[in-house]
Amino acid sequence: MAQKHIVIAPGDGIGQEVTAVGKKVVEKIAAKFGHEFTYDEVLIGHVSIEATGSPLTDEALETMRNSDAVLFGAVGHPKYDNDPTAQMRPEQGLFRMRKELGLYANLRPIKLFDELLGASSIKPEVLKGADILFFRELTGDVYFGEKGRKNNGDTAFDMAEYSRYEVERIARKAFDAARTRRKKLCSADKANVMETGRLWREVVQKMSLDYPDIEVEHQYADATAMLLIKDPRRFDVIVTANLFGDILTDEASQIAGSMGMLASASIGDGTGVYEPIHGSAHDITGKGVANPIASILSVALLLDISFGMKEESELVIKAVDNLLKAGYRTRDIADSQTAADKILGTEAIGKLVLTTLDEL
Amino acid sequence: MAQKHIVIAPGDGIGQEVTAVGKKVVEKIAAKFGHEFTYDEVLIGHVSIEATGSPLTDEALETMRNSDAVLFGAVGHPKYDNDPTAQMRPEQGLFRMRKELGLYANLRPIKLFDELLGASSIKPEVLKGADILFFRELTGDVYFGEKGRKNNGDTAFDMAEYSRYEVERIARKAFDAARTRRKKLCSADKANVMETGRLWREVVQKMSLDYPDIEVEHQYADATAMLLIKDPRRFDVIVTANLFGDILTDEASQIAGSMGMLASASIGDGTGVYEPIHGSAHDITGKGVANPIASILSVALLLDISFGMKEESELVIKAVDNLLKAGYRTRDIADSQTAADKILGTEAIGKLVLTTLDEL
Ligand SMILES: CC(C)[C@H](C(=O)O)[C@@H](O)C(=O)O
Ligand SMILES: CC(C)[C@H](C(=O)O)[C@@H](O)C(=O)O
Repeated sequence: MAQKHIVIAPGDGIGQEVTAVGKKVVEKIAAKFGHEFTYDEVLIGHVSIEATGSPLTDEALETMRNSDAVLFGAVGHPKYDNDPTAQMRPEQGLFRMRKELGLYANLRPIKLFDELLGASSIKPEVLKGADILFFRELTGDVYFGEKGRKNNGDTAFDMAEYSRYEVERIARKAFDAARTRRKKLCSADKANVMETGRLWREVVQKMSLDYPDIEVEHQYADATAMLLIKDPRRFDVIVTANLFGDILTDEASQIAGSMGMLASASIGDGTGVYEPIHGSAHDITGKGVANPIASILSVALLLDISFGMKEESELVIKAVDNLLKAGYRTRDIADSQTAADKILGTEAIGKLVLTTLDEL
Repeated sequence: MAQKHIVIAPGDGIGQEVTAVGKKVVEKIAAKFGHEFTYDEVLIGHVSIEATGSPLTDEALETMRNSDAVLFGAVGHPKYDNDPTAQMRPEQGLFRMRKELGLYANLRPIKLFDELLGASSIKPEVLKGADILFFRELTGDVYFGEKGRKNNGDTAFDMAEYSRYEVERIARKAFDAARTRRKKLCSADKANVMETGRLWREVVQKMSLDYPDIEVEHQYADATAMLLIKDPRRFDVIVTANLFGDILTDEASQIAGSMGMLASASIGDGTGVYEPIHGSAHDITGKGVANPIASILSVALLLDISFGMKEESELVIKAVDNLLKAGYRTRDIADSQTAADKILGTEAIGKLVLTTLDEL
């Protein structure tokens, strides 16, 4: 029996729909295992701008900081996508959360449930057995460097920056993880073009001397983008900078069949944040068709990493596996063989996970 | 009958092997059509550093500038990949060529030869009919911004920069190309994170008013990386910044079955440069197995774009198509059905193209 305080931050668009399901799964686990979880809900992103005039208030941030873990949804709104001149943007709430909570390591496990082999656009024989763990750096790079305009607004600039220390701390987490897995680490950079890439490579090369048991390869980010599709099984752990990690993990979602399947953990100095890697997806918001599995699997990561609850975590994954085995799918992961009556919406999939958890 | 002067710049690694084949194809076309092509050969990259102490000499650059077109191979060497502290690097020759020749537009056509449907790691039913033309900006971004170290070398930085003018000129080429194709343009940026991305989106949005016949969509670079694999047929023309273009086109090479199949044209203010999108690939250098088709198709682009020789260009493509139809493959594009005696090396494929050109 453990007491934990969890902050729910659904954010925008389908973030609301999938996080509602995620929360129910946490509650079910608490009931089943006799844990005492308490909750706060906070605003972030567009909904926060609308309600408070800020994409993330100090108060919401403090609530997160004082919690044991945050279950987050997504931020974003077409309004801002179409207006590149907007000064206040939903994403600023996300960046503030990442920076202020010191969430420098974003773990994105890419693993295909066997039942979804057919749902990917990649050939099953290329995919089968692929199992990649990304470590995306999350508080540096162009995301947090100086940016702005000059020449009367006619020139825009973004500064990418990395310090040795920033590279070391994310690389250390990746090396340590590789030790518990297949002992292979790929570091992806653009050392042939960027000075940050050369520093990155230098640091990883030096650290590899402390990890003689880990097989390290350095790949350019462009080559990595190609190899991920050509031969995903060659990778075990991949560590990379913020911007490359953003692109490469979105791409790698196709290895898992759909972005709707992928969860992530953002960890660092304090409270961890758990979230789907998909965005707010306003094109499908309100239709009840969003895949909640990424949020459910985010709960599994939360239980495991922030609370050390291995058994609880595995049960959540097992529940998802069971319903996939039983043939249930959301639209995004249905293939041409899926029976129409087994294609379910967000809430129905959520309910199935809850009843499966009851039975397990 | 036309008189043209062509500069051959094989560069490093397999650049040498594939460009030798490319040159023979140009010579054959000249003979067949009665053109008078003259040639100069220049050094670039690691071979140039070794011979002259510079990755691209002023003299070599002037020779390129004064020619009608450049057939280029690749640059790079493992020595530098493993030594991030090296001050002089082969890639600097490439960047100098791109900048000094004003090659701001890099065209990368991604099209699958039907015969190679089986060779890709992506499912044939997802690929069939995919036909994408990338416009990668080539003289801006972190490639050419200020970069360096501070804090006693402990912090590295790279500046990404774009001016309105730089975005406009590449976008204009992309819009114009879309007009001759399926009239769809996707602009890929990170306007949700980067100021350069917001300027990029602003400019493309404004220009779209001049092109009411073109259907424009803005996608984030990460989403584009995902959609390229999920549904490549949704794209027609894609325009993007230098760094995103580097990553997305390498990734997209898997749509064409192999990087060894993809040619590119770099054009702008003066002489155009034609090159495979693959690199120097030192792991297979000297083995005679490199796929020369990217260089051969670069010749086709050169004849078409720089010389306006449509018929000659189409004949080169037809020759490649014919040998693929006859079942011949290099190793990288062979699938499990390819008969062993039809898997050929660089030179043998080159010879086949020449005899096919004789017969056509
Ligand atoms: C919403 C967006 C700013 C964000 C990012 O680029 O980091 C998202 O793509 C992600 O991966 O979390
Ligand atoms: C060799 C390298 C510097 C180059 C680049 O990053 O532009 C290459 O990947 C390319 O795409 O031409």
